Amino acid sequence: MALIVQKYGGTSVGSVERIEAVADRIAKNHATGDQLIVVVSAMSGETNRLLGLASDLTPDPSPRELDVLVSTGEQVSMALLSMALHERGIPALSLKGSQVAIRTDSFHNKARIQSIDDRRLRSELAAGKVVVVAGFQGVDENGETTTLGRGGSDTSAVALAAAIKADECQIYTDVDGVYTTDPRVVDGARRLESITFEEMLEMASMGSKVLQLRSVEFAGKYSVPLRVLSSFKEGPGTLISMDEDNVMEAPTIAGIAFNRDEAKLTVIGVPDTPGVAYQILGPIGEANIEVDVILQNVGDEGKTDFTFTVARNDLEKAERILDSYVDDLGAMEWRSDSKIAKVSVVGVGMRSHAGVAANMFKALAEVGVNIQMISTSEIKISVIIEEKFLELAVRTLHSAFGLDQEETGEDNS
Amino acid sequence: MALIVQKYGGTSVGSVERIEAVADRIAKNHATGDQLIVVVSAMSGETNRLLGLASDLTPDPSPRELDVLVSTGEQVSMALLSMALHERGIPALSLKGSQVAIRTDSFHNKARIQSIDDRRLRSELAAGKVVVVAGFQGVDENGETTTLGRGGSDTSAVALAAAIKADECQIYTDVDGVYTTDPRVVDGARRLESITFEEMLEMASMGSKVLQLRSVEFAGKYSVPLRVLSSFKEGPGTLISMDEDNVMEAPTIAGIAFNRDEAKLTVIGVPDTPGVAYQILGPIGEANIEVDVILQNVGDEGKTDFTFTVARNDLEKAERILDSYVDDLGAMEWRSDSKIAKVSVVGVGMRSHAGVAANMFKALAEVGVNIQMISTSEIKISVIIEEKFLELAVRTLHSAFGLDQEETGEDNS
Repeated sequence: MALIVQKYGGTSVGSVERIEAVADRIAKNHATGDQLIVVVSAMSGETNRLLGLASDLTPDPSPRELDVLVSTGEQVSMALLSMALHERGIPALSLKGSQVAIRTDSFHNKARIQSIDDRRLRSELAAGKVVVVAGFQGVDENGETTTLGRGGSDTSAVALAAAIKADECQIYTDVDGVYTTDPRVVDGARRLESITFEEMLEMASMGSKVLQLRSVEFAGKYSVPLRVLSSFKEGPGTLISMDEDNVMEAPTIAGIAFNRDEAKLTVIGVPDTPGVAYQILGPIGEANIEVDVILQNVGDEGKTDFTFTVARNDLEKAERILDSYVDDLGAMEWRSDSKIAKVSVVGVGMRSHAGVAANMFKALAEVGVNIQMISTSEIKISVIIEEKFLELAVRTLHSAFGLDQEETGEDNS
Repeated sequence: MALIVQKYGGTSVGSVERIEAVADRIAKNHATGDQLIVVVSAMSGETNRLLGLASDLTPDPSPRELDVLVSTGEQVSMALLSMALHERGIPALSLKGSQVAIRTDSFHNKARIQSIDDRRLRSELAAGKVVVVAGFQGVDENGETTTLGRGGSDTSAVALAAAIKADECQIYTDVDGVYTTDPRVVDGARRLESITFEEMLEMASMGSKVLQLRSVEFAGKYSVPLRVLSSFKEGPGTLISMDEDNVMEAPTIAGIAFNRDEAKLTVIGVPDTPGVAYQILGPIGEANIEVDVILQNVGDEGKTDFTFTVARNDLEKAERILDSYVDDLGAMEWRSDSKIAKVSVVGVGMRSHAGVAANMFKALAEVGVNIQMISTSEIKISVIIEEKFLELAVRTLHSAFGLDQEETGEDNS
């Protein structure tokens, strides 16, 4: 008998029909004798409907009242799902964050969980109940309703799983697992049986579509085995595991991640003196703009070119800042380029496999993709390339590192 | 500085625009220095939307989960109204039933209030806040959400007013007060400045459209001055007062009530022996059918006719029951008639005024309305007549007892 926490997102409970499908699935799990805690989000569209009402009334709603308002969405879902379970003869009970209790700090709209009382949960489970818990919400020490911020239901599920020492935390979404890369870009993209937390975090560009990163960090920190599954399709999904040895497949590379959300800024002909990097990036950081990849060319005649990337929607702001002090730097000029993309090869296996970088650069060179910048971490190598080459680069690397479905022979139909 | 409890129903908070209108009204009241507790219902249509989702899932939803579900409606309203008040610079704070706390018994969907803790309310009022409270909901001793049954927000408001010893409980609705009779039937129907609780209860046929009767009884029991006002139109409304001497107008008659919801059953030629009334009405009562007016004709040759009225939607059930034992009674036959109506003259003044009944019967006779049955209480005389004469009878009595607007000279424009 396993103790499982399941989480169903807004799309999975988005209509009466979908709630019934979720109830059918839970009924099947319940029949196996597993103990189940089910965390639900608001029905898709509901949170936006409520936020729309608020913004019709005021441009600047009180964070406290906003939490009172939006927390109703999950309460509706949990009551409806409990009714659907009753209708199937499953004893079920819904609990609000305050009834569990999921205790948070008092930062409304972005509260953090401080502790979870597992007594009520354990006694209801012991009584044979499926416990349906409102995701996304908690209660502070004064009894005020708080919310964890959007997408926070994943975090609720992981925190509950950690508190009650669940055997597994299952996140049901509209995709059936984590893939070696985006299937819309590479036909042969393959669902991973398992992936490590570190890889999952580095695969952020795909991972963020599947799971909230904060919940992955949380699961890693508390060693909660996390599984991503589809609520619409049967299948084992992808297990996100703490233990690298437990990862059943152990290829060098887990997947190819990418994103188009970066832009590049280059300061040309800046004096190659100590402290120049700080002089350039200091004001950018002070403006709360995050810098990703940084490159400083080898200087020539005491001058150097300094290049860095920022999120594309921070580009204009970064340009204004750079423009204001580029003269003081003694630089010749600066340029920006938003037509870039980042492609990353991710895998804990590369720690023990030399030559991953060389293979990556070779594969890209063979198809004529020029590399503008390179950045490496222990389990990831990223390159910045022209945006128009993105799909070509991803397909090339997916194939070069043996990730294509055909090559592994796995049946993923 | 007065302490006022205001209650706004679902129509009054049915849209963003109406919530803004309510906020404007509260802002005006707040500016006078009054302390305000505002009780809100769910936005009109919301409770039915939620119940619809539940009934799509199950014909027999769990009462507990139904309370979790529908209680969200009031939480949405209270958060939105608080935001609208903030936008107007009014310090406001929403409180759920559990946060107040409004403690009830554990009968989900029809809970009764047991106690109200006034400490949080008093401290927020003392801090200058307008306190917005979710109507219709409470919390039982186990922390479970309960609801008071539909329309229960009126009761919430009266109970809060009683608990905090408010100077007045104001119920805002879509009518601007209690009228001498239904203005759709009598053009000259006049808004009453005040009415006693007893009269209000007897005026049920109109009163029930304005106020939930349970809240009126509750207000009477705890001596809470109740005022019915329109949320759409300025005006003093109607004060429902404990003290008959305080009722500014003291006419003999407060108003003419009526309803079409009754049907009549007659057992003909039943032996005129002691106990016949019980023999006839016993089985009816056991079937939980409420009997209103009862008439037993004077017997002739040891036989009598026995007539009684029931709610029209109980008629078929009553007919079936009557049919099953009418032979055992030794009666000749039974008949039923659903084309009847009841018209009542109501007023505490008739206690000290003889001749009200005589005047009533005379006025009806003069316009040719035949009286089928008569029933009296200390402050009410009711007659059963043919349904087709209803409007004529109401207009005749409204005029005969001097209730028409023209005759009093009051300007009600």
